[in-house]
Amino acid sequence: MERIRTIEVSQHIGERVRISGWLHSLRQLGGVSFLVIRDGWGIVQAVAETEAELAALLESGAGVESVISVEGQVLSEKQAPGGIELHNLHIEVITQVTEVPPVVLNKRKITANITTLLDHAVVANRHPARRAILRLGAGTMAGFRATLMARNFTEIQTPKIVAAATESGANVFKLDYFGRPAYLAQSPQFYKQVMVGVFERVFEVGPVFRAEPHDTTRHINEYISLDVEFGFIENHFTVMALLRDVIAGILKTLHEQYPTELELLQVEIPAVPSEIPHIHFADAQELILHRYGMDVRGEPDLSPQDERWLGEWAQQEFGSDFLFVTGYPMRKRPFYTHPDPARPEYSNSFDLLFRGTELVTGGQRLHRYADYLAALEKAHLPVEPFESYLEAFRYGMPPHGGFAIGLERLLMQLTGVPNIKLTTTFPRDLMRLTP
Amino acid sequence: MERIRTIEVSQHIGERVRISGWLHSLRQLGGVSFLVIRDGWGIVQAVAETEAELAALLESGAGVESVISVEGQVLSEKQAPGGIELHNLHIEVITQVTEVPPVVLNKRKITANITTLLDHAVVANRHPARRAILRLGAGTMAGFRATLMARNFTEIQTPKIVAAATESGANVFKLDYFGRPAYLAQSPQFYKQVMVGVFERVFEVGPVFRAEPHDTTRHINEYISLDVEFGFIENHFTVMALLRDVIAGILKTLHEQYPTELELLQVEIPAVPSEIPHIHFADAQELILHRYGMDVRGEPDLSPQDERWLGEWAQQEFGSDFLFVTGYPMRKRPFYTHPDPARPEYSNSFDLLFRGTELVTGGQRLHRYADYLAALEKAHLPVEPFESYLEAFRYGMPPHGGFAIGLERLLMQLTGVPNIKLTTTFPRDLMRLTP
Repeated sequence: MERIRTIEVSQHIGERVRISGWLHSLRQLGGVSFLVIRDGWGIVQAVAETEAELAALLESGAGVESVISVEGQVLSEKQAPGGIELHNLHIEVITQVTEVPPVVLNKRKITANITTLLDHAVVANRHPARRAILRLGAGTMAGFRATLMARNFTEIQTPKIVAAATESGANVFKLDYFGRPAYLAQSPQFYKQVMVGVFERVFEVGPVFRAEPHDTTRHINEYISLDVEFGFIENHFTVMALLRDVIAGILKTLHEQYPTELELLQVEIPAVPSEIPHIHFADAQELILHRYGMDVRGEPDLSPQDERWLGEWAQQEFGSDFLFVTGYPMRKRPFYTHPDPARPEYSNSFDLLFRGTELVTGGQRLHRYADYLAALEKAHLPVEPFESYLEAFRYGMPPHGGFAIGLERLLMQLTGVPNIKLTTTFPRDLMRLTP
Repeated sequence: MERIRTIEVSQHIGERVRISGWLHSLRQLGGVSFLVIRDGWGIVQAVAETEAELAALLESGAGVESVISVEGQVLSEKQAPGGIELHNLHIEVITQVTEVPPVVLNKRKITANITTLLDHAVVANRHPARRAILRLGAGTMAGFRATLMARNFTEIQTPKIVAAATESGANVFKLDYFGRPAYLAQSPQFYKQVMVGVFERVFEVGPVFRAEPHDTTRHINEYISLDVEFGFIENHFTVMALLRDVIAGILKTLHEQYPTELELLQVEIPAVPSEIPHIHFADAQELILHRYGMDVRGEPDLSPQDERWLGEWAQQEFGSDFLFVTGYPMRKRPFYTHPDPARPEYSNSFDLLFRGTELVTGGQRLHRYADYLAALEKAHLPVEPFESYLEAFRYGMPPHGGFAIGLERLLMQLTGVPNIKLTTTFPRDLMRLTP
């Protein structure tokens, strides 16, 4: 009999079906045995009323996480998960497991501490709650791509081994490249800008590497960056409008295609206003002074507390979980940032705050060759390591801009997990290189 | 006036439109000037019949690759590219370029040699023929994902910084990870297998890194691997059936969604038989002896010449560009390869040949913990570096298998370009770390 997936079983009430998966749990209650079988998509309960039905399991001593195939008749049963159950079982053991797994996978709540979870991620990722977060990661990538492809963006892949540090030169991993020094890309920033000269509108989904020696709940050293860059913009407001649509597109995808995962994680998808409210950096500092009594004017950046206040204000004033802060001072932004033509000490850049925490950074970039030469000089940076990059501007680039969404940070803020390391399959941190 | 894309202009005959892009070429013919404007998608010809129309260009001295905006009336004109032309122009210069680009972008045939092309890839990638190949890369990724997502596969992203070399230990890039040695992943092989325990059916699109010191037309040191792995297979034939559908899905996507690029590159999409013919490794060697008179029996692998002969045979015998060779000897396959239960010296693995060249490798993997321990011992490999990986098998894995398609190699074979470096945005080779 052809195997069906657990999530398809409810369409076969009254019929006999075959499912395959892992023995998620097995408990006995007064002569009746309840098996839960987990496959790649969900779980189904199977009920054995005789010992003969369990023979294959008992003979081999197969315990939880054994891989099995179960044939049975589908009955409607309100008490059972999903409202259905299998009866009159025929069980086949495919791969027998006798040892107890290092992490309990069949309790709703994960009881293992984070170190155990990460040390044994190879098995712990099977827990339905862990799996649901990871699956939302797949949904985020899918929603990101779909939104951009519908807007005629082209997907690119750019090198991760680079000759020079991308932006600052700090916090890069160093590599031996056939006897020459090389680095792991901190971001595809330069390449995605250059590719605007080729395709106009580009995006990339790929790993970036940051050798930041921080051991916090918000840092990992390898993460997935969802990068966008496009040309013929008016200014950073064109970029913000696209970012709004991309965030809305991601959330729509999750809402429509991942209801099971969202329910299991008790995540509510936030509403994205058709226009996200925005406030200029300087006005934000004034607002913090008048509303919260803290004078942060003159500070070159917002503190986490400032961001929380602004998030609170956006919630109360606009009923919005999202807020754009625009016009960050030039001196805290990278050299390729486009200044505000009217107030050149401020930039045409923005941060998107979500519930009072920075979620995305973006902005307009310089597009004239002469402006790059001046910006590098002002930043006391040599021209030579940037020569290839600069060639794009030497031979004509339109006004352009973009942004980068950290996949894991988005997932963390959306799901409310306490540590970003729990949003990714196999995190890399200061101490962790395995699994 | 809102700007439209060049490929949309033909829908506006008789109307006045605005396009933006790069000044692709400008030639004057008896008082009339022909401008070609290139944007991210195509080109449009614009005709200036008076000097006043060209004033903005002439005053600024803007040459080819200047970024401009052109308003004009759309006229039907059989001689013009795409059958349309703009007239009564109003030109605005957005970014002026006065230097001549290092690569000629506006001749149909690329005349620059490969070194020049790659040194100046930042600009050379703008050439319509270069761009078309790169765009087919985007289409290949899209077709790959769409085919798998329609079959309930989940996209994963796995770490590229790893503690131990993935397979052989040879040809890995070494990294300084906060003072500890680490490596760049040669393939997501172990991680994708482990994730079969979580999602059952997984795929990944991501970079892999090979420190192979080969300077050939078929090698690059960083490339995009299209990886698939899935559980509950019968044997390698289940994997081959999926691979057939994935290849067909990619080619269908290119055929339906990238007609302009295929035409420009004069690429014909090959037909994929509903069932790709297959031959066992041992039978292939017999066939080579009887058909071509060369006795290669006893050789542990096929030579490029052997593959060409087999490709010729598949074409003549089945009219197929594709051929599966199955059952490669175990001794030439990695330790996780599943043997043929009937003939354990042969494996449940395969290569897919396309026109006589290897395109994809795949197969069934071991799935029992004890089999892994035995296989490592047989291969004289220590258990310790693989302990995390082995944990997946210790706690229950189904029969599974998969394959990996090298994106650049597929593009090379499809488009017939003479060097794989021409299939990717910014290749990395023995000598090349920039751009």
